[in-house]
Amino acid sequence: MKILLTNDDGIYSKGIEVLYEHLSRDHEVQVVAPEIERSAVGHAITLTDPLLVKPVDRNGAFFGYGVKGTPADCVKLAINEVMEQQPDLVVSGINLGANVGINVIYSGTVSAATEGAILGVPAIAVSINTFRNPDFEPAARFARFLAGQVNEYGLPPHTSLNVNVPAIPENEIKGVRVTRQGVTRFVESFERRVDPRENVYYWQCGSTPPLQEDDDTDACALANGYISITPIHHDLTNYDFMESLRRWSFPKVTD
Amino acid sequence: MKILLTNDDGIYSKGIEVLYEHLSRDHEVQVVAPEIERSAVGHAITLTDPLLVKPVDRNGAFFGYGVKGTPADCVKLAINEVMEQQPDLVVSGINLGANVGINVIYSGTVSAATEGAILGVPAIAVSINTFRNPDFEPAARFARFLAGQVNEYGLPPHTSLNVNVPAIPENEIKGVRVTRQGVTRFVESFERRVDPRENVYYWQCGSTPPLQEDDDTDACALANGYISITPIHHDLTNYDFMESLRRWSFPKVTD
Repeated sequence: MKILLTNDDGIYSKGIEVLYEHLSRDHEVQVVAPEIERSAVGHAITLTDPLLVKPVDRNGAFFGYGVKGTPADCVKLAINEVMEQQPDLVVSGINLGANVGINVIYSGTVSAATEGAILGVPAIAVSINTFRNPDFEPAARFARFLAGQVNEYGLPPHTSLNVNVPAIPENEIKGVRVTRQGVTRFVESFERRVDPRENVYYWQCGSTPPLQEDDDTDACALANGYISITPIHHDLTNYDFMESLRRWSFPKVTD
Repeated sequence: MKILLTNDDGIYSKGIEVLYEHLSRDHEVQVVAPEIERSAVGHAITLTDPLLVKPVDRNGAFFGYGVKGTPADCVKLAINEVMEQQPDLVVSGINLGANVGINVIYSGTVSAATEGAILGVPAIAVSINTFRNPDFEPAARFARFLAGQVNEYGLPPHTSLNVNVPAIPENEIKGVRVTRQGVTRFVESFERRVDPRENVYYWQCGSTPPLQEDDDTDACALANGYISITPIHHDLTNYDFMESLRRWSFPKVTD
């Protein structure tokens, strides 16, 4: 397959390098990724700034393009301009830190995969559940395996796969679970400070609450030692509520 | 009600001023909004930069806080730090330009409402279908009406309302339709340029394709002169595909 590889930790990150090494054994891999870390950018795209693109040679690990933009920008630009043919698969990762539950909507890693799905290309986002001393190998091996599965089975339109891998020794991983996205909220906090010119500013912090998710969620599978795979799409409609909403009274617009 | 008012065009925009004027007739309105335009930022949040907060006096129109952050940052910060009590409603807008179809996932306006829903507060996003010579009055009047309806009927958990108002004379608006989000893709293009130091950069442009959406979508209702209301949530799971995905073969992770 022709694979477009991107991430949100930036083209110089270790996660993309390990993933390249594994995927390029079987496939032709083109890297187009943000030149710097663009975590938590959600599905941002860049319309009001120019997208600077620079060739990046990762000292023999791979050659690719670094973009002064978001992960979603990278996917759009790669498919529209950089690659001569539409890729067969978009892979995003390996992200440092899980993208489960509510974090999915803030995730640049996942939005790159979603952007692939929007543009009609099957896509996989891969994250590991740690920020420290990561061993990317198990996740890279699984991503390579899953790429083959996607090639064999295909994905429905507008759908990508959000994969999270536990940060435990590979032989302790219990298996794979197909999950739904949990929706338990992130608990954020803000630390108030005053700068030397007496301006008020805040640092935004967040913590994951004690696991309150149901058994069938991504967060729960991951916490229990399973690789979670959640099929996601970008239709945000709450269909269940449409009929109730239609019963609200909507007169003509008046003052 | 206590209403938190925000937007993605910035605290100095006309749309937020008109909306404030209408909502404050019946409600206590607190404005916390980006200090500059933050369009197309999707659900970005700011974790790696400080969030500078400045009091803003809009020359008698209103007093509020301008934040060096995204719309989602503003909602989190307002609810966690600025407001003494949790608001009863979050209103985001009035945005210049429709947020229908695929644009919904790139929209800062909609993400502010989604953030309200995540934090347990009912929320409405309001956009008008033009970028030029906007008349915000019909949309502001409808937003005020709809705020009352939400107060009366309530919204289910994790759900907000994405409202789009046609840019036509108010007496020509045909009525209100409860719609689903269309998923027809945006057609983007990139204009390649070279800067004076011979670096390559691109401007990202986009155009809306000829209307191919089904009758029951937001884009179709809007194009036909109706106000569209789409109930949205932030569970991205593609439930329909879960069973098929479970039938894929997932052996233990091996090289």
